[in-house]
Amino acid sequence: MSKTFSYSQLFNFSKNIFLKIGCSDTDATTAARSLLSADLRGVDSHGVARLSGYIRLWEVQRVNATPKISIVHETPSTAVVNGDRGLGLVVAPFAMQVAIDKAKQVGTGWVSVRNSNHFGIAGHHAMMALQNDMIGIAMTNASALVAPTFSKERMLGTNPIAVAIPAGEQPAFVADFATTTAANGKLEILQRKNSPMPLGWALTKEGEPSTDPNEIKNGGTLLPLGGDKEHGSHKGYALGAIADIFSGILSGANYGPWVPPFPAYLPMPEHMPGEGIGHFFGAMRIDAFRTADEFKLHMDKWIARFRSAKTIPGQEKVLIPGDPEREMEAERMKNGIPLLQPVIDDLEAIGDKFKVVF
Amino acid sequence: MSKTFSYSQLFNFSKNIFLKIGCSDTDATTAARSLLSADLRGVDSHGVARLSGYIRLWEVQRVNATPKISIVHETPSTAVVNGDRGLGLVVAPFAMQVAIDKAKQVGTGWVSVRNSNHFGIAGHHAMMALQNDMIGIAMTNASALVAPTFSKERMLGTNPIAVAIPAGEQPAFVADFATTTAANGKLEILQRKNSPMPLGWALTKEGEPSTDPNEIKNGGTLLPLGGDKEHGSHKGYALGAIADIFSGILSGANYGPWVPPFPAYLPMPEHMPGEGIGHFFGAMRIDAFRTADEFKLHMDKWIARFRSAKTIPGQEKVLIPGDPEREMEAERMKNGIPLLQPVIDDLEAIGDKFKVVF
Repeated sequence: MSKTFSYSQLFNFSKNIFLKIGCSDTDATTAARSLLSADLRGVDSHGVARLSGYIRLWEVQRVNATPKISIVHETPSTAVVNGDRGLGLVVAPFAMQVAIDKAKQVGTGWVSVRNSNHFGIAGHHAMMALQNDMIGIAMTNASALVAPTFSKERMLGTNPIAVAIPAGEQPAFVADFATTTAANGKLEILQRKNSPMPLGWALTKEGEPSTDPNEIKNGGTLLPLGGDKEHGSHKGYALGAIADIFSGILSGANYGPWVPPFPAYLPMPEHMPGEGIGHFFGAMRIDAFRTADEFKLHMDKWIARFRSAKTIPGQEKVLIPGDPEREMEAERMKNGIPLLQPVIDDLEAIGDKFKVVF
Repeated sequence: MSKTFSYSQLFNFSKNIFLKIGCSDTDATTAARSLLSADLRGVDSHGVARLSGYIRLWEVQRVNATPKISIVHETPSTAVVNGDRGLGLVVAPFAMQVAIDKAKQVGTGWVSVRNSNHFGIAGHHAMMALQNDMIGIAMTNASALVAPTFSKERMLGTNPIAVAIPAGEQPAFVADFATTTAANGKLEILQRKNSPMPLGWALTKEGEPSTDPNEIKNGGTLLPLGGDKEHGSHKGYALGAIADIFSGILSGANYGPWVPPFPAYLPMPEHMPGEGIGHFFGAMRIDAFRTADEFKLHMDKWIARFRSAKTIPGQEKVLIPGDPEREMEAERMKNGIPLLQPVIDDLEAIGDKFKVVF
């Protein structure tokens, strides 16, 4: 059961809530835009459904609504940004802009961020590069849910990686994926349907393969992309580890099993080695390699060729990374964003609390 | 059946063969070092077993033994290198050194390469960064064997990605993996044993799942990391595509189904849009983010913590990316490199041809 809401209604409501907790008008706009990009692109688990979660982090003083976000170290092509416990939804666009500005100067820019919080969807930040004729890269670490190959212990977050690449006539190539076989949101869908989960997504608490989508609630672990060693899970583990190290260790944030949890009611890890959660951003100017026109011509050729690749039985077409999200965005901008009743109830409750009409 | 040879015997033989085709002493040394690093690290499919393949490429004039490798475009943090049809084994270290030199100047360096050939193993080139207290990145495209999600057509190579990250007391973190579920070399091992192949590795020519390790010989395709859509193969497809675009389109090399094949007897693709095959390299100076000492302290902590993660039933320990290859290298440096009889025969035949004693 769901009802449908317009982008502008959800955007204005979210922005007003961010204003109520003390964000500046600019920051509230940035945060609402980051948040809503998830709803538009069909990543429902990361959009307004999480608004109350961010507010609870502010209530327990883990989120600072008026952060002094700053560059604490830099070279011509790099920077470390201290997010000052700000909303990741605001810290991430700041840091991505630093990467873009550096790319304008010296060809590329690379920014590692500490002392931040959950930043929404990685793809939204990576896509900031596109309008500048740059390739954008965004990644983050997150609290541990994923067991490395051969392990049954929660050591890594779902640590997503996004890469956005401009094209010409064709829409941009936008890959944005968790470094696990499946994200937790997919398990939640199966829980609601009471359906079994495919093997290779999660392990029981004891480290055994499972088809029960409730394993994470029962103390189990998500599996790295690949699922098991025979299917290359050591590669998914390496990808999640790289996102963790670039985001957490280059910046001075927490990493591995020490990354703070998103739910405000969960205790913080003991003996944390850094500050907050970490992100990593990159921007590469296309014309630092070849003219943007030439590049886009070949990207168009690449995309057209892959789109016309021969399909397996039962499939109509081959997709380009970003196709489903872009189509979803167009559809939802036109026809609205569907929300499940528990999410609507949750937003109404925040509205009541902060005296903002939903 | 195999015999064991010392590193120095195989190195000297390979170097002498490269000298015989006209490489300079420096290039022959570099090429032999790149080639042998695969044998040392246990990637037997990419080492001296391929020496005759490189020579055949020279014989059909696809490899230039005396290339004028040059930087054709650059900014402070980027460059495009034209490999002039040189051995990838030589072009890649040249380009990685350019990335390292740029990182010394402005914090990071990023180099896309066109007009090259097969470069051996990606990890060898990425690891050049380590001795400079830098993170090293290497990737390449390769001739098409891999079908994108929902496709049965060969559109991408196994396009490996390597990331090498320095540590302090601990050995470096070195991830180096094909963006497929399994590399072709693993299918060949199963062919020799006459064993079935796990589902999720390859499709038949018609696009159906298969357990026959001979599928590639029969016109089938390898699958991207993840195997099928349900297990995240769209993520492996995106990774392979990113390596292809960074290596091929940023540089002006070929890409997708147009990348030239390694075996010299195979015809070149028609209507190639670029020059040769492409690579992409990156170097990030650690102290462009934080002091190398601090970083290494935390990398040591990360590695020690992951190594001690709780294991699943039947496994003794959790590995860090690079552990198996490093242990193999130590073992083979000490006890020699085993070669199968067909590889020995092949090397003896080259030796006879070029009057070099094996």
